[in-house]
Parts: sequence; C-alpha cells; structure tokens
Amino acid sequence: MEIVSEAKSHGGRQLVVKHSALATGTDMTFSIFLPPQAEEGGKLPVLWYLSGLTCTHANVTEKGEYRAACAEIGLVFVAPDTSPRGPSERGSVPNDEAYDLGQGAGFYVDAIQEPWVGFFGMWTYVTEELPELIAAEFPVDMARQGITGHSMGGHGALTVALNFPERFRSVSAFAPIVAPSQVPWGQKALSAYLGDDRARWRKHDAVALIEDGARVPELLVDVGDSDPFIEKELRPRLLEQACAGAGIPLNLRIQPGYDHSYYFISTFMADHLAWHAERLKGE
Amino acid sequence: MEIVSEAKSHGGRQLVVKHSALATGTDMTFSIFLPPQAEEGGKLPVLWYLSGLTCTHANVTEKGEYRAACAEIGLVFVAPDTSPRGPSERGSVPNDEAYDLGQGAGFYVDAIQEPWVGFFGMWTYVTEELPELIAAEFPVDMARQGITGHSMGGHGALTVALNFPERFRSVSAFAPIVAPSQVPWGQKALSAYLGDDRARWRKHDAVALIEDGARVPELLVDVGDSDPFIEKELRPRLLEQACAGAGIPLNLRIQPGYDHSYYFISTFMADHLAWHAERLKGE
Repeated sequence: MEIVSEAKSHGGRQLVVKHSALATGTDMTFSIFLPPQAEEGGKLPVLWYLSGLTCTHANVTEKGEYRAACAEIGLVFVAPDTSPRGPSERGSVPNDEAYDLGQGAGFYVDAIQEPWVGFFGMWTYVTEELPELIAAEFPVDMARQGITGHSMGGHGALTVALNFPERFRSVSAFAPIVAPSQVPWGQKALSAYLGDDRARWRKHDAVALIEDGARVPELLVDVGDSDPFIEKELRPRLLEQACAGAGIPLNLRIQPGYDHSYYFISTFMADHLAWHAERLKGE
Repeated sequence: MEIVSEAKSHGGRQLVVKHSALATGTDMTFSIFLPPQAEEGGKLPVLWYLSGLTCTHANVTEKGEYRAACAEIGLVFVAPDTSPRGPSERGSVPNDEAYDLGQGAGFYVDAIQEPWVGFFGMWTYVTEELPELIAAEFPVDMARQGITGHSMGGHGALTVALNFPERFRSVSAFAPIVAPSQVPWGQKALSAYLGDDRARWRKHDAVALIEDGARVPELLVDVGDSDPFIEKELRPRLLEQACAGAGIPLNLRIQPGYDHSYYFISTFMADHLAWHAERLKGE
C-alpha cells in the first residue's frame, strides 16, 4: 500500500492510496477521508461511495463536497476506482473505445467473458479485497458500514447492499441505474462481462434482486428531473415498483431542475451523509 | 455573452459564461453562481474570487465548496480566468513554457511590455470590463462587493481592494502573495509584464501599497503552515508588519497542517463567506 498523496482538509486527512490488487491484476487507486475523530484512537463508521461511468476516485474526491459533513459526523469516506487501469503482469488491461465499456466502466461485476475475465473483477474488489485492506489498515468499524454511489455506482451500491444485507446498515444512491438488465448501458456491459445468459445478470440488477427476494431495511434515492438519463438509463420508477411490491421503504426524491452532474450530487451529499450517520451511530 | 454551461446546484444556478473582452483581445470565460435568492427579483451582494497560478475559472468552481454557503447567505460568486487564452484577432496570444508566466499567470496587471502588451490586460479586465458586464447582466448590487482570492489571486484581491477601497466592503485572501516585488514569482511576472522600473510595481504589491498609504478597513487572511510556498513566495509576516505599521486590523490565521491546495481553500471557504456576508449585509 502506497500513499500517493495526503492533504489536511476540514480538520481530517484526505488520502489517495495505491495498492496491488489480486482481483484485477493491476495496481488500484482509491481515496479515503479520515475525519479528525480518527486521531482519537477509536474505530469509526465508514461510508463506501461507488462512482459512475468514466470516473476514477478523483471525481468525487474533488467535487463531492463530502468532507465538511464527514468531519462533523466522524465518518470515514472511501471512494474506489471504477475499473482496472494501467499496466498488469497479466498483459495489457483490455479496453473499449466507448465510454460505457471497459476502463472506467467496470459495472461492479466479476467479468467471466473474454477479453475482460482476469482483469475486470470489480465485484470481488469492492466486496472483498478492498474492504479487507481498509479494515486492516485504517481505524474503521466494519460493523458500521454504509454504502452509496452515483449512476453506475448507484447500481453498484444497491446491488452490493442487496447481496450483503447484513453488512450494511444504510444504503442510498444518487441517480442510480436501478435495472441494468432493462436499459442500454446495463445490457451492453452485462452481456460483455457476463455473457448472454441473463440468469447471471440478476445478481447484478437491483430490481431483479428485489424481485428474487433480496431485501434491505430502507433506501434513500435522489434523482434530478433534468437528468438526461432518467428515462432511458436510470428509470427510478422501476425501483419504486419493486420496493412497493417487496415492502421496502424507499424515499425516492425526484429533485426538480437537477441534472446528472456533481453539481447535483454535491447539493444532496450532506443530506445523504446525515441520513447514513443517523443509521450508523451507536454500537 | 454566451452561456457555456448551466447547472442547478444547492438551489441556485452555476453558470459558465464566455464573452469577447477588449482588455485581452480574446474571448474570456468566467463562472458565476447565482444563489436561489436571485429568483426573487432583488439585487444581491457579490463576491469576487481571483484564482491562482495555472488556474482557470474551473478550479474553484469544481473544488471550492462555496455554493452551499452562498446559497444560504444569498451571495453571488464570480470567478474569472487568470489570463487570456485561445485565439485572438490581434494574433497569437503570447505564452511561456513556465507555469508562472503567460497563460494561467496574468498576475492581475496590465502588461506594457512585449510580447504581453495588448493581450495581458488583466487589471482592466477584472477591475473594469468584467464588473461592467456583471453589473449589466446579472442581479448584483454593486454597492455591496467583496473580494477574495488564492495565491496569485490573493495578491490580486489585496491589490485590487487597496486600489479601490471605496468599491469593496470586505477583503480576504487564501495564501496570498503579499509582496510580489520581494519574491521570485512576483519579480519574474512584474518585470516581464511591467518592465524593470520598480516604481510601476508598487501599485501591484499589497505591502508596497500599504507602505504608500493605501488602506482597507480590515483583512482576513488564512495561510497553511504546511504550505510549501509560505516562506519563499507568500511571506504573510510582511503583510502583518505592513498592517501593524498602518493600523489596518489584520486577522492572519496560520492554519496548522494545511497546504496550498483546494483541500485547504475549501476547508476555510465557508468561514470566509460568512465573514464577507457579515460585512455585505444591509444597504
């Protein structure tokens, strides 16, 4: 583990860290914010933030406006990359010219199809390998984890939480892709990484997971009504229907005038952090 | 005037605007945040933010974390570029390979030396041309202006305010270059843009201006004690001495552990905005 950069911010420490990952065969970079309370010797609750298409750890780290609230709450904030990149001892990391496949577009699955298999192990990376590293190296209380994300990362947050409901006390999302099996971004990525057997896709589709019986205690989801992807790719009403059918309390807030950008995310970030903090406090 | 982008954020509107500028002979791009109160029909106080070396309007717009506080206060926030760029009908905009001269390094002066003269009119741009445009096109109360900036832009904020004390009700700075005539960044830029007659430099040197009798009512300045430029380029103690000699109340806060980056700026941005707001309220 190598600390690429460290800066004091809002009383805490914003780190960017690189480490060698087995799940991808590459070095992976993530950011972690340690609030000032991390100096006090105890373990702190942790929020995972999964990013969207084309992003690295840097987008939310620079534009997410999370540090002030995390410092106030005493919350660790971890932002992984969205795919493997760069050199690998296993050969060149595969890529695609499109922005919505390959590097920057890992979709939080373990690819089993060529050329992605062996590199695009983002499911194992965000659900096993990185949590083990974070638990070992930083003062986090793994009994108090929350998860959120944006767009493709909102899909990641929902599907990770639905697969590991006992692991997360709180789940929210910004403009998530809620039913990748039913929309172009998701169909393209899932068929490329997992192949055409759609039974394999269901574990990576929040709406399908809920239909199949997966549950979380409750959900907070914000989507802007000026988000250009709302109808074609995000389709929040499909999540609303699935949650209604399953009895999962969903606070779906369609935010008037907001788009898909970090101008939207940063507006509601403090809200989400307070919501997670409420559920992560106590033992 | 062309609106390059517009996004709703924190209830207001974050615009990026391009216009043709006479002071530079180029198109110039700036950002302006209009808080939600701008929809109510009245005129609002305005804070100018001048950026540092290598920056455009985008750095503070993305990383400055000012919108939440501006939306709460009802404050318009304007961030100009730091130099001309791009094509010009007057010929190619001159540049230099160094990061601290030429494009991205206008130093908020009107260049009179070749090759910069005719393009690098950043003093006229930020003190005349852009204020006239902002006053004409946006709901701002030009009787309630404050100014701040970072590093080279902190130098700009201090020197603009000291030259136009009746224009600004409030002045602050983040890690400013307080005495460019006495430090390498400033000596390089001022000699290139203004020539070697140091009498011409004094109007663009906050410490020299104060020595020569210029006054502002008070100052708020933050500098990180881990800022790598504090001793060689920023030299806040020179401002402290000048203010002490002139009887200008200076709140100089040396912030432990902070560096020169936007992780530092964003930490203290809300503080500065509240400080300006206190001085900009009322008629």
